[in-house]
Amino acid sequence: MIDRQSNPSGEDGLIARYFRPLATDPGAFNLVDDAALLKSSDEDLVVKTDAIVEGVHFFKDDPPDTIARKALRVNLSDLAAKGATPAGFVLTLALRNADHAWLAPFARGLGEDADRFGCPLLGGDTVSTPGPLMISVAAFGRVPAGKMVHRSGAKPGDRVVVTGTIGDAGLGLDILKGGAAAAALVNKIEAREMLVGRYRVPQPRSAMAQAVRDHASASMDVSDGLAGDLAKLCAASSVAAVIDVPSIPLSGPAASLVASGVVGIEALVSGGDDYEILCAIPENQFDAFAKAAGMAGVAVSPIGTIIAGTSAPKFLDAQGRVMPLPRLSYSHF
Amino acid sequence: MIDRQSNPSGEDGLIARYFRPLATDPGAFNLVDDAALLKSSDEDLVVKTDAIVEGVHFFKDDPPDTIARKALRVNLSDLAAKGATPAGFVLTLALRNADHAWLAPFARGLGEDADRFGCPLLGGDTVSTPGPLMISVAAFGRVPAGKMVHRSGAKPGDRVVVTGTIGDAGLGLDILKGGAAAAALVNKIEAREMLVGRYRVPQPRSAMAQAVRDHASASMDVSDGLAGDLAKLCAASSVAAVIDVPSIPLSGPAASLVASGVVGIEALVSGGDDYEILCAIPENQFDAFAKAAGMAGVAVSPIGTIIAGTSAPKFLDAQGRVMPLPRLSYSHF
Repeated sequence: MIDRQSNPSGEDGLIARYFRPLATDPGAFNLVDDAALLKSSDEDLVVKTDAIVEGVHFFKDDPPDTIARKALRVNLSDLAAKGATPAGFVLTLALRNADHAWLAPFARGLGEDADRFGCPLLGGDTVSTPGPLMISVAAFGRVPAGKMVHRSGAKPGDRVVVTGTIGDAGLGLDILKGGAAAAALVNKIEAREMLVGRYRVPQPRSAMAQAVRDHASASMDVSDGLAGDLAKLCAASSVAAVIDVPSIPLSGPAASLVASGVVGIEALVSGGDDYEILCAIPENQFDAFAKAAGMAGVAVSPIGTIIAGTSAPKFLDAQGRVMPLPRLSYSHF
Repeated sequence: MIDRQSNPSGEDGLIARYFRPLATDPGAFNLVDDAALLKSSDEDLVVKTDAIVEGVHFFKDDPPDTIARKALRVNLSDLAAKGATPAGFVLTLALRNADHAWLAPFARGLGEDADRFGCPLLGGDTVSTPGPLMISVAAFGRVPAGKMVHRSGAKPGDRVVVTGTIGDAGLGLDILKGGAAAAALVNKIEAREMLVGRYRVPQPRSAMAQAVRDHASASMDVSDGLAGDLAKLCAASSVAAVIDVPSIPLSGPAASLVASGVVGIEALVSGGDDYEILCAIPENQFDAFAKAAGMAGVAVSPIGTIIAGTSAPKFLDAQGRVMPLPRLSYSHF
């Protein structure tokens, strides 16, 4: 460590004050040991790590509790898409300073979500940085041995299905940046808040883990844009797909913005941060899958079909014409 | 993601080029799935996460391969101290840009160490940051069920033992910062390079995992300074300790610098980045532990004794006087 400081109890005190109360799992050892423990089990362990960076994945002035929730939820979204039940997570928190007014709501939001999703804090590392805040989470989920659902496995004839609605988070980001959606919704505070909320606080579809495990031939979460993520699922499965664009589920505000020409549907299907599940469901499994989704309280929409081939997924408009997509998804570099 | 860029294949291309060759474990799925898999096992899984930040834990101009090695090794050091055998790791890499001249040696160093320590890359996340580079690793190790070695468990009468030598990395850091050690060693390039090497590339004592598991009553790695870390082990075990300072193992260059008065021993015992194992060994286990260490090729030194009580560990000089320690260890805040 290059810049050594003079307060020997600062880091430990911060951990004790804000994060020990979250470490409810016996394998966390109250955060007083050097490592955490996941007990041996006859289930496989699914491991996912995703990081969020100030100025890239969230804004400096976002409410701290939403930043915490997003950091955890983007990982829970992946676990759900793999058919895994949350088991716990470790956290790396890079902070410029120990700002208690920020840390208190951050830890509260994190703890609430850890409870809500049954995913306790197991351990972590808190480091100082001169740069932007960064929160990296590695989350663990359990699946029965051999039952993790992969990107590969989709077969021609399977239905392409998504949970929830697509494009809201991208619109929320546009609003926070003062884009076209912000101007169009200037007098519609509820719509604005819903869309911004979808950007700031994803809704991981943890309730769908078992339905995905039981019925999906392939699955992933939509985090970088539906079009690009579907292309990845198809490539991993060595298949292609045809998507019926009017079947893509949109929220009321998103549908209005598309209908009024403020945004194009192509922007919504290539926007990021949806954190919905995209999966392939064999035709003979679809009714059971839809029923399980209904029991879980999660909307699912069939949006197209897996076909043979290796070309890029085709998005067809209401007239059956292929819709050009200038960009498939987000990339960091 | 706030700043969307135009190269859809950049991030995936970077992962494919530099990191897929490292993902040799079947549970990594060649990094084309969303998550990794650790198969069910009758062993417990030990989880450790530690991050390193440019300007805090390493210098901007440090060789990229040493940065990679340090990021992984600081975690391997913890696994060894817990008695765990490496099973794999996930990586979060926050980069300002895709600098191939930096990434190529970084990935090469990481891959070499993953091979060397039998700890394959399982997955990760690569994100862009406007700020300093940051590398966060979560590493996994396996121990027979119930056999993880804790900080707690040390008993009065146990010997306090450390591996390797203490204080070298702190001196290496002092040299890189142009401090007193740099001036004293201006004509001793080999000593300088050894000490800087100890700072840049820790030597995790993975070969000691089984000996620790078989013989230690309590164990942790020394990462924030021997004095502070011993205080933590004692607190977790509800014991105290008496340390014989002349028994603390020093490298030749470190011993010379102390003997010539360039640095005080108290600075070495409260410096960080040693990444040695500090453990308590019951008296009747010591010979077997020392023999196992000899087989593993790792030097171990008894430096004191665990005693009853809850006061801070005492460091006694050659005359048996308590040595004052103005600072116990490093803290980020």
